[in-house]
Amino acid sequence: MSGELVTGLKCRLCGKLYPKEALNFCTDDFGPLEVAYDYEAVGRTFTREAIATRPRNMWRYRELLPVDGEPTVGRHVGGTPLIRADRLAKLLGVAELYIKNDAVNHPSLSFKDRVVAVALSKAVELGFETVGCASTGNLAGSVAANAAAAGLEAYVLIPEGLEQGKVLGATIYGAKVVAVRGNYDHVNRLCSQIAFRYGWGFVNVNLRPFYAEGSKSMGFEIAEELGWRAPDQVVAPMAGGSLIGKLHKSFLELETLGLLNGPVRTKMFGAQATGCNPISNTVKTGAGKVKPVRNPETIAKSLAIGDPADGWFASKLIRETGGWSEDVSDDAIVDNMRLLAETEGVWAETAGGVTLAVARRLIDEGKIDRDGSIVLCITGNGLKTQEALVDHLPRPVVIRPTLEEFEALVEAGVPAVLASA
Amino acid sequence: MSGELVTGLKCRLCGKLYPKEALNFCTDDFGPLEVAYDYEAVGRTFTREAIATRPRNMWRYRELLPVDGEPTVGRHVGGTPLIRADRLAKLLGVAELYIKNDAVNHPSLSFKDRVVAVALSKAVELGFETVGCASTGNLAGSVAANAAAAGLEAYVLIPEGLEQGKVLGATIYGAKVVAVRGNYDHVNRLCSQIAFRYGWGFVNVNLRPFYAEGSKSMGFEIAEELGWRAPDQVVAPMAGGSLIGKLHKSFLELETLGLLNGPVRTKMFGAQATGCNPISNTVKTGAGKVKPVRNPETIAKSLAIGDPADGWFASKLIRETGGWSEDVSDDAIVDNMRLLAETEGVWAETAGGVTLAVARRLIDEGKIDRDGSIVLCITGNGLKTQEALVDHLPRPVVIRPTLEEFEALVEAGVPAVLASA
Ligand SMILES: Cc1ncc(COP(=O)(O)O)c(C=O)c1O
Ligand SMILES: Cc1ncc(COP(=O)(O)O)c(C=O)c1O
Ligand SMILES: [Zn+2]
Ligand SMILES: [Zn+2]
Repeated sequence: MSGELVTGLKCRLCGKLYPKEALNFCTDDFGPLEVAYDYEAVGRTFTREAIATRPRNMWRYRELLPVDGEPTVGRHVGGTPLIRADRLAKLLGVAELYIKNDAVNHPSLSFKDRVVAVALSKAVELGFETVGCASTGNLAGSVAANAAAAGLEAYVLIPEGLEQGKVLGATIYGAKVVAVRGNYDHVNRLCSQIAFRYGWGFVNVNLRPFYAEGSKSMGFEIAEELGWRAPDQVVAPMAGGSLIGKLHKSFLELETLGLLNGPVRTKMFGAQATGCNPISNTVKTGAGKVKPVRNPETIAKSLAIGDPADGWFASKLIRETGGWSEDVSDDAIVDNMRLLAETEGVWAETAGGVTLAVARRLIDEGKIDRDGSIVLCITGNGLKTQEALVDHLPRPVVIRPTLEEFEALVEAGVPAVLASA
Repeated sequence: MSGELVTGLKCRLCGKLYPKEALNFCTDDFGPLEVAYDYEAVGRTFTREAIATRPRNMWRYRELLPVDGEPTVGRHVGGTPLIRADRLAKLLGVAELYIKNDAVNHPSLSFKDRVVAVALSKAVELGFETVGCASTGNLAGSVAANAAAAGLEAYVLIPEGLEQGKVLGATIYGAKVVAVRGNYDHVNRLCSQIAFRYGWGFVNVNLRPFYAEGSKSMGFEIAEELGWRAPDQVVAPMAGGSLIGKLHKSFLELETLGLLNGPVRTKMFGAQATGCNPISNTVKTGAGKVKPVRNPETIAKSLAIGDPADGWFASKLIRETGGWSEDVSDDAIVDNMRLLAETEGVWAETAGGVTLAVARRLIDEGKIDRDGSIVLCITGNGLKTQEALVDHLPRPVVIRPTLEEFEALVEAGVPAVLASA
């Protein structure tokens, strides 16, 4: 992980190269910047054999994560299970289904720990002592947790009205949590101003190019677990549209480095809620640009970004890889959270319900091939979005502690919890 | 993992050997049964080198887990991080402090996934199709999740009045959740009757000998992560008193097999809440037996077992290893949940607050050696016990999305969240 591996930040529009600093857009054309690597240099140490000897966390892929020295924040992030989901596969009528379970990511139970580990390690390298983020909930908890562990001061800005688990899950770590009257896009704009005004390191604003690369580790893990091959099809939830792009980039990078068995032919499928579907709408209409959603309205609050920073690149990628995108109702989200839990024992937050609901729709429509391998990306934990379920699940029957009362209950049938979907 | 490795179930009182069946006490003296191994046979394949090549989950120690064939339930459990906690260490004035973070265990975010993985894999081997448990909350979620993934029918019995996250966290998986008017001991007694009456496999009743062995995997992971040495001191929360004993057993087994660098001199420290302290009370008074607590009353509901099945063995072990036990108030629990989150970015449930509070007390009293290594066992996730915190944390300030309002807020000082402890 020598500093030489990262050559700079490159504009995704004009290709201009910038130094690796806290900067997120091209000053010529406002194009987003992306980390550029010297892949030849990377290839010298980044081999299957070397990787196999490293601890099972995201840093086993460190040559392709843009931190120059040793990571100092989030050293235990990643290494989450990839589960073969045969019970669910049977129900959906597909051959080879996997769940990548970032709902149990250390420390804050979402894939955001991956992006934050990189962004804050980089923030430390760049000398920031105060960091922050604009968040729909998961990023808030992850920045707060990882900043606490690193002894950094953290400002976390969220839209008003998030779930209790998300709010407590940031406050508990001692972060300065500020709720903003408005939606995520208002929060995000304010954070750009704050980062500029105070010179703080906002992980998804001025540190965004570094931050975004962290998501690649989810893809690296998937490919390695599959025996160094890229899956045929990936379904990922989309908010800002960054994760889905980085998953695909991770496969391409492994291919570039000659680490994969077979070529990357992965089709990318993006999942949104109908109440906030700017990216899926762009894919489905074939529009030439993303039309922002003014007033997002869905229980999948973590995905409620009306004006997604990487929305255009995500929709382009989805179409170019031969994938597709869909959006689903709040009812479908709840039904599919339950289905995932009942069939595979994985309790995902609302975003997971979005992912499974969209996957099922696209399988039914023939857009996802039943015979190809499918990976569902589960990105956050169900304990964080209890509000979405509390009125949809039966409350436990209460009995006195006698065998008679229990027998009567079994006789009558304990309310079985079955997915209505 | 041939069937030959487990030789039977052995009475902890009289040593009588029973066949490996669903049986949890000696029919001669009602002593609890424990799994017995042929350590010579185990040693043939259980080497550091062999272990190093296996996936990083609890089954890398499979020769010492009592499943005869391949595990079929909970194949991805374990492999949680052991964190070097230098920020907290500095604050406590100790040299070498670690946190074992089972709050991010797959799938249900507590160490109970370890015991359930073994119990249900064994249940499948023994031909059970319906399983169940008596639970203070975490076991409920774990049995429900793992049974769902395995396609087993699950009855989960809990005392009335558990936290919402624990109740939803069992119902969501489609388990039949039954609340019992009474405390855990009432629930437990009822479950014994049910297991007998219906012939079901209750993980912590008739499958208890197998179940309990699962906790050893937490100890194996700690020792391996420490470079194959046993820590000097371990602090573990106690409910039934099983976990603490199995942690110690795990170190002894590794020593028996010649896998450790240096002898096992680990002192075991047990943590309880003052509102339910039958084991710590036994340790502190030196009583000859455990006096049950009739009406447990603490926010650490997961530890609220008034009549602990393994309480006597736990208190004996604690004294014999040169450790100690303490119990702490609900206020101290909350303060220390916050301290753990603020210093190390780990949000534990109430039981984690108990563990840290007791550790601090015993460090202050000189019972825990500041120069020896210390491992704190964090066994469950903070998202499950939000009730304990919601009135103790500041609510976020709400501002309009303007730089002016944010600046005014920074000027005035965003309410900082600082542990009062
Ligand atoms: C749970 C969850 N899944 C997926 C996403 C989408 O990530 P992205 O913004 O990279 O599209 C988010 C973003 O906040 C999230 O919280
Ligand atoms: C979070 C947590 N920690 C610790 C324990 C204690 O385990 P044991 O009953 O083995 O003493 C429990 C038991 O329910 C628990 O839920
Ligand atoms: Zn440009
Ligand atoms: Zn006996």
